[in-house]
Amino acid sequence: MSAARGKFISLEGGEGAGKSTLLAGLHEHITAQHVALVQTREPGGTPLGEAVRAIVLDPARRDMVAEAELLLMFASRAQLVREVIEPALAAGQWVLCDRFTDASYAYQGGGRGQPLERIAELERWAADGLQPDLTLLLDLPVSTGRARAAGRGEADRIEVEADAFFERVRSAYRTRAAAEPARFRVIDASQPAVAVLQSAIAALTPLLAEHAL
Amino acid sequence: MSAARGKFISLEGGEGAGKSTLLAGLHEHITAQHVALVQTREPGGTPLGEAVRAIVLDPARRDMVAEAELLLMFASRAQLVREVIEPALAAGQWVLCDRFTDASYAYQGGGRGQPLERIAELERWAADGLQPDLTLLLDLPVSTGRARAAGRGEADRIEVEADAFFERVRSAYRTRAAAEPARFRVIDASQPAVAVLQSAIAALTPLLAEHAL
Ligand SMILES: Nc1ncnc2c1ncn2[C@@H]1O[C@H](COP(=O)(O)OP(=O)(O)OP(=O)(O)O)[C@@H](O)[C@H]1O
Ligand SMILES: Nc1ncnc2c1ncn2[C@@H]1O[C@H](COP(=O)(O)OP(=O)(O)OP(=O)(O)O)[C@@H](O)[C@H]1O
Ligand SMILES: [Mg+2]
Ligand SMILES: [Mg+2]
Repeated sequence: MSAARGKFISLEGGEGAGKSTLLAGLHEHITAQHVALVQTREPGGTPLGEAVRAIVLDPARRDMVAEAELLLMFASRAQLVREVIEPALAAGQWVLCDRFTDASYAYQGGGRGQPLERIAELERWAADGLQPDLTLLLDLPVSTGRARAAGRGEADRIEVEADAFFERVRSAYRTRAAAEPARFRVIDASQPAVAVLQSAIAALTPLLAEHAL
Repeated sequence: MSAARGKFISLEGGEGAGKSTLLAGLHEHITAQHVALVQTREPGGTPLGEAVRAIVLDPARRDMVAEAELLLMFASRAQLVREVIEPALAAGQWVLCDRFTDASYAYQGGGRGQPLERIAELERWAADGLQPDLTLLLDLPVSTGRARAAGRGEADRIEVEADAFFERVRSAYRTRAAAEPARFRVIDASQPAVAVLQSAIAALTPLLAEHAL
């Protein structure tokens, strides 16, 4: 008997929204239910992807054109999907990913102005059409997120963008969530971390119940 | 008065066909005609592109999926076109490039089996639809090219492929040349280097004559 396919959950949101913080809490909650879980991130998650991440986030690469940024994000994703995510799901493991294709719609689409049909086409073949079963969008005002993130060392190549860029990112995320209400759960990320985790756990409950059957 | 647009010439061919050797001879011939010339290569040609080249050719990355390889090649190209080639052509300079988009049709298309329409779509937006004015295809039997290339240090991630791969590459190049006879000039690269250079110079003569007007 082959295991039931695992569930794929992505976390999205602007800088400092609390994705990494939430990831840790979710990891603990899910594994406590005896669910085998693979945790990963984008860009990155494979040796190739991490090499691409180093290029993409390098603050010295100020002159990277938007088309190259989009292609690099999908190069990392193409590898991650085939090397990590799809094999894990097929083996019945769950996958928890810090950002996925929605981030390209938000950052390269909303932020940089790359056409959404271009991203959709890459999603189809580069990401193999793979979509998360559940996407948690941590939504909060840009200024709050930036204030939270400010405490960490040197800003990367994307973090140095102006507020207007991150407003477009936030708005693109919200538009996607509104268009796909069955897949997205929008969480008010200005709440205390414990309340954010509670909301995320509530969103996961139906998936975990399905899994227990 | 703005300068006339420069000419864009690409060199293509399998491993060890003699592209780099020919490039040196052509560079000398063209600059001797008082033509300002930018010489570049793919993947690479920009700081971003050279970082991508290091990833793509690293023999340790044996597990790179074909989709990621294709996207990385076009990420390098997207940057090269906008940062180097188009500004040079607009300023009236000529550009001589060691490989361009035809290499993706040959290697990622013919060699790796990526669909040609997928490559054509990337050519349209990632390479900005830019095509060379003249493409010199150095054609020779796979075994001859491999024997020539064998003398150089460690083989890169593409050079380690089997002969069947390079036969598909050669065949894809020839198919493209046959489909676009006005842009391509196929040169028998099994000739001595001096004869190859002579053929290439003959192919360039009409462009140089146009330029002198
Ligand atoms: N709900 C919360 N309330 C207040 N502070 C929080 C909350 N969640 C996280 N933080 C703090 O905000 C900062 C950013 O959090 P975190 O690194 O989890 O965000 P992130 O979304 O992963 O950011 P990035 O997009 O840059 O990776 C950290 O200092 C974290 O401790
Ligand atoms: N026409 C020729 N006849 C014989 N040997 C040649 C000829 N042209 C080049 N060579 C030799 O073949 C080897 C490969 O040539 P070169 O490096 O120019 O090929 P290349 O097409 O640039 O290869 P690669 O695709 O690996 O970059 C070199 O040792 C070079 O001196
Ligand atoms: Mg984080
Ligand atoms: Mg060469």
